[in-house]
Amino acid sequence: MAKQKLIFRGKTKSIYESQVANAVILRFRDDASAFGGAKRAVFEGKGVLNNRLSEHFMASLAQVGLPTHFLRRMNMRDQLVVLAEMIPLKVAVRNCAAGSMAARLGIEEGKVLPNPIVEFALKDEKLGYPAVTEEHAVAFGWASQIEMEDMTAMALRANDFLAGMMAGAGMRLVEVVLEFGRVWQSEFSHLVIADEISPDVCRLWDIKSGRKLDKDLFRNGDGDLTDGYSEVALRLGVLPKTGTRVQKPKLVN
Amino acid sequence: MAKQKLIFRGKTKSIYESQVANAVILRFRDDASAFGGAKRAVFEGKGVLNNRLSEHFMASLAQVGLPTHFLRRMNMRDQLVVLAEMIPLKVAVRNCAAGSMAARLGIEEGKVLPNPIVEFALKDEKLGYPAVTEEHAVAFGWASQIEMEDMTAMALRANDFLAGMMAGAGMRLVEVVLEFGRVWQSEFSHLVIADEISPDVCRLWDIKSGRKLDKDLFRNGDGDLTDGYSEVALRLGVLPKTGTRVQKPKLVN
Repeated sequence: MAKQKLIFRGKTKSIYESQVANAVILRFRDDASAFGGAKRAVFEGKGVLNNRLSEHFMASLAQVGLPTHFLRRMNMRDQLVVLAEMIPLKVAVRNCAAGSMAARLGIEEGKVLPNPIVEFALKDEKLGYPAVTEEHAVAFGWASQIEMEDMTAMALRANDFLAGMMAGAGMRLVEVVLEFGRVWQSEFSHLVIADEISPDVCRLWDIKSGRKLDKDLFRNGDGDLTDGYSEVALRLGVLPKTGTRVQKPKLVN
Repeated sequence: MAKQKLIFRGKTKSIYESQVANAVILRFRDDASAFGGAKRAVFEGKGVLNNRLSEHFMASLAQVGLPTHFLRRMNMRDQLVVLAEMIPLKVAVRNCAAGSMAARLGIEEGKVLPNPIVEFALKDEKLGYPAVTEEHAVAFGWASQIEMEDMTAMALRANDFLAGMMAGAGMRLVEVVLEFGRVWQSEFSHLVIADEISPDVCRLWDIKSGRKLDKDLFRNGDGDLTDGYSEVALRLGVLPKTGTRVQKPKLVN
């Protein structure tokens, strides 16, 4: 196999050129990053888990009419995705108060919100991902008014679907942070859910015990990330039920 | 226990007075009814299953901010629900073409719709549950414009959540038909999801095989209704996994 050309290396994933027109390869590495990259570590098997989980969530969302960048999984760490022009915003949907929102507004962590709240943050690490409004995004040209409305509606739908999926497996989706991309066809574009959907971008708690199964395990130093992520994958039937822990992955590439 | 006073006997459920203010008892019977009551039968254990399943779905929806009439389960067949003034509409959300929509519009059964479609029908058995629009409902006073918009939004959210929950257990939610009620507090009212959410009011297919697990088993004479309903309850963890079939219920009342 010819060596693939690296296009971009992010904190946890890398993007490579593919042989398919208008598609790129998204590689899930084992790197973990928190607090805007200030805390870093490597968890063996994390990339394999997130590749499978993101495939599962994105393929399920497509089945209810939510377009995503996902095309197909290529191997344990790689998936083929549509080449999209990324919108420089993180779109958080929160079902319970937690993390930065709980801290910033002085609300008790875990409080169930009467309805999901959508929040936008500018995707700029140096600025610390500052909170922005729809008006900021339109004024500074990060997205059009219609795109902001489309992202809000798509994020709310995705959140409801994913919250249902998690509830069915005994987990509470506390929040999910999505990213969107523009896919161009001649002079027209439409939005797709892009980047990844995995425990790296969710807060996921066991419904009964409140035990955290997401990246907070790493943020807070509460345990091995891959234990939590493996449990999520097992509960969702994404990993076979033989063995309780993901095996050391054999690298294909 | 004093004999409860019957308020209303429907085709599959009965409503009794309760000792709790502004609440009534909803009793799930074993009766099955299809084609507007033209086809009827009794399936032992169906009422027990639907009581548990409706509890499970309604309690889960409440957790993501969707108000329902459900208060608590009282015993195997009965649940305590908020007294609500029922809106005389059936609100169907369809994710795939099936049933009357597929037949009426000549669309292949099973075709995944690009986005969920909401349809309203007047709840009038003698008229054969005729399809109506938002404009009909407002013009004839069945619901206000704001109520129609609230019902549409709530039905779409509930559908996304339930579709996710079913997908997590290997089932496709083809459609769900909801009913809504008005709950009055002095001169103000708000809407709640009422009646029931169960395989009686869904179309639910196994994702891989397409096998039907819902009331179509009875409509089409394809098998025992309670086999399908038991499987739904088992997959969702609503019934314990010992035994593959609901036991003959001991009647409590």
